[in-house]
Amino acid sequence: MTNQPESIRFDYNNMMSVYVGAKEGFTDKDLDAVKPLAAEAFNFVKKNRGTGMMGWTELPYNQKDVVKDIIFTAKKIRRSFDAFVVLGIGGSALGPMAVFQALCHMRHNELPKSKRKAPKFYVEDNVDPERMSSLLDILDLDKTMFNVITKSGSTSETMSQYLIIMDLLKRRYGDKASEHIIATTDAVSGSLIKIAKKENIKTFYIPAGVGGRFSELCPVGLLPAAVLGIDIKELLKGAAFMDRACRKADIRSNMALASAVTQYIAMQRGKNISVMMPYADSLRLISDWYAQLWAESLGKAENIKGEKVYVGQTPVKALGVTDQHSQVQLYTEGPFDKVVTFIGVDRYRAEVKISEGCEDFPSVNFLCGHTLNELIASEMAATEYALTKNNRLNRRITLPEVNAHTIGQLMMFFMLETAYAGAMLGIDAYNQPGVEEGKNATYALLGRAGYEAKAAELNARPEKNPKYIIEAQ
Amino acid sequence: MTNQPESIRFDYNNMMSVYVGAKEGFTDKDLDAVKPLAAEAFNFVKKNRGTGMMGWTELPYNQKDVVKDIIFTAKKIRRSFDAFVVLGIGGSALGPMAVFQALCHMRHNELPKSKRKAPKFYVEDNVDPERMSSLLDILDLDKTMFNVITKSGSTSETMSQYLIIMDLLKRRYGDKASEHIIATTDAVSGSLIKIAKKENIKTFYIPAGVGGRFSELCPVGLLPAAVLGIDIKELLKGAAFMDRACRKADIRSNMALASAVTQYIAMQRGKNISVMMPYADSLRLISDWYAQLWAESLGKAENIKGEKVYVGQTPVKALGVTDQHSQVQLYTEGPFDKVVTFIGVDRYRAEVKISEGCEDFPSVNFLCGHTLNELIASEMAATEYALTKNNRLNRRITLPEVNAHTIGQLMMFFMLETAYAGAMLGIDAYNQPGVEEGKNATYALLGRAGYEAKAAELNARPEKNPKYIIEAQ
Repeated sequence: MTNQPESIRFDYNNMMSVYVGAKEGFTDKDLDAVKPLAAEAFNFVKKNRGTGMMGWTELPYNQKDVVKDIIFTAKKIRRSFDAFVVLGIGGSALGPMAVFQALCHMRHNELPKSKRKAPKFYVEDNVDPERMSSLLDILDLDKTMFNVITKSGSTSETMSQYLIIMDLLKRRYGDKASEHIIATTDAVSGSLIKIAKKENIKTFYIPAGVGGRFSELCPVGLLPAAVLGIDIKELLKGAAFMDRACRKADIRSNMALASAVTQYIAMQRGKNISVMMPYADSLRLISDWYAQLWAESLGKAENIKGEKVYVGQTPVKALGVTDQHSQVQLYTEGPFDKVVTFIGVDRYRAEVKISEGCEDFPSVNFLCGHTLNELIASEMAATEYALTKNNRLNRRITLPEVNAHTIGQLMMFFMLETAYAGAMLGIDAYNQPGVEEGKNATYALLGRAGYEAKAAELNARPEKNPKYIIEAQ
Repeated sequence: MTNQPESIRFDYNNMMSVYVGAKEGFTDKDLDAVKPLAAEAFNFVKKNRGTGMMGWTELPYNQKDVVKDIIFTAKKIRRSFDAFVVLGIGGSALGPMAVFQALCHMRHNELPKSKRKAPKFYVEDNVDPERMSSLLDILDLDKTMFNVITKSGSTSETMSQYLIIMDLLKRRYGDKASEHIIATTDAVSGSLIKIAKKENIKTFYIPAGVGGRFSELCPVGLLPAAVLGIDIKELLKGAAFMDRACRKADIRSNMALASAVTQYIAMQRGKNISVMMPYADSLRLISDWYAQLWAESLGKAENIKGEKVYVGQTPVKALGVTDQHSQVQLYTEGPFDKVVTFIGVDRYRAEVKISEGCEDFPSVNFLCGHTLNELIASEMAATEYALTKNNRLNRRITLPEVNAHTIGQLMMFFMLETAYAGAMLGIDAYNQPGVEEGKNATYALLGRAGYEAKAAELNARPEKNPKYIIEAQ
């Protein structure tokens, strides 16, 4: 890392008519037309940063003491434990997984301990009994630290996992059970903080203005990352670097705003699908993290005025080059309903040469002597070219290299893009009213007290018509 | 397994107006209106089965000798090797991965050898140098069997991997290198079969009429499955069971046809997104396999008459309950542009009780005494209910249990659904013309002889305009 940090780049040439044709592409006039709205969005984000549910904008700056505590705690964990298990779902799982995948060895858990230098890592973000039972088959409890993460302290999935694990720990360790578990939750509200106090569990706090999908840069993500040996100060520095770079009002220099503007225009034109396609296995789960951020923030029935709008672009996770052999046929020839965002990498952290040995077979021999690095870069360029030639809107984000600083930049970029896009759409990017119905129905189905009316409502559903149910026979 | 196999079920009540409302839902009249087209599609599939590129329909019936050879070979591999690595991409990777995830222990590679009872399993479906290098870090070559899979024998990604691995093997084992690798490819055409003969590599064949995305039930998928100890005869029996069940012309009894019909009507009404959402981690990669099948088969610019149609629904992979905390907000409140297909499981292969211990906290305590099995089932029912209440089209496929027979059924169901849907759309479901442009551009970028004109075309692209490229600073 030089003194001058290397920055990620955003290129939207292939959204413009000169590249993808007049019918699909944007003109400077189109960009100009949304500039007033973009300026409003910019000012909205500027005015609200650090307030309300926009506490996440300050995370790169206001966690000095927290970071110290996390690094201290992580060191102790690394000394005493050989596995670290996150119990969490949604925003409490996707960030830790994405950063792990990006910055640790790609076969981390299968490395011998001497090479691994950090505990094995597991994120349990489902309540499938087969999955929980499989995990318990391989864990050595004596050597495992659990980290239960839920802001509300009452997420059913996470608290179920907590109950199961805490019971196991208490049976084995009695009063010392709490030495095997750390809680990350709200400092005052919710059940988990109260349970943690009662059980004497070490706790980290999720700041009040930081919602689940914007929480990776608080202890939710920082503790697991530090346990894995990731340089969390660099991660935060990268985020700060991007945040400062995006304090300019002009879309010519604010890349998150420019990115939001291009997506906004695309959405107005019916592009209801946003494909995120990194050409790097290390960035595969960044797409998963982005999918929650984009879907849950922008997918809203009502705008802030209370008018029905039913907006939101559906994020699609793809991986280059892999999905060239799965999805690219559709992206190239199907409906004109997508924006494809490529994420490229200038320097991979390994170089692999393609060996010689196929001189008699020209359809294979041309590969010999090249590197996998050249192959993956050429395939990305070629796919961009093919999409562009077929008048398909696409954009490219480039990381000089995948490291803690550029990942910090990338995550802050996407969070800011989401904030700007939400403001342009005129919706509240920080709530999720649409999940309440399902939660309440779950409570009713499990017989929770107070949900009798909902249970009655469920029971009053029309019976299913057997004519629309088919069994193979 | 009883004598009478348990069959999967398909329920499309929640596509009907009685459940999701008149604006979004279908009526019997709507179904009746497409019946003539459905009958045509049914007859097209019936007439063409086993011919042309529909060889896959016969795989459950015509592989007796192949299966014998595969089981014999697999036994030998299981005795002598501790890792089995598939080198393949697209259809040569997604099926093997999906079946592994469905039918092996969910932490297979991390189990001790005594419990695992089969080699560790890796599918390398990308050319990211970091990934290849990570894999080589953990493999013990002496104990590793490779399986290179490509029908054409010239897939750049797979053949690059082959060159790298074969070079390693030859350096280590000289003339005996071929004892560490098996090729699965076309019996006559392409480079790999010729290379395999020259190098004396054991070979399995992909039948002529079986394309990549329809190849899981031929040696492409059967060899890896057998090596893992999966009962491949049951898998084929399940597929045969579904195939026979779908020989009826009536959508009231042919579930694959009914499924295709509901998706066809949805597509005609602008539902350009198909969400596949299993409530089981074991079925997570079935969504990936489905995503290729559906996207690459149906995403076509031209119909069989050569008219421009630009059709194709974009598959989206989701996982219940996990994605309730990521995507369901959008599915419930966003645009009316989706069909959500739930995949449920009647009996999970494990039961996990949620322990007691939170009597003081009602927001958690209601979970106590239930099982994770009840929780996941209730959450699926609740999410279905919430989507339906918000007038969102959804369907449900149910597996009595995840086992080789039901996975065989499920895969055949999706392949038949795809065949019917393709016929209804009037497109060729078996080609992929849209990927040629990208392949040729890759060849040109890597300097392959014969692609000089394409290279010139690439060089003639308009320069990128720096005004649309932003760097953080």
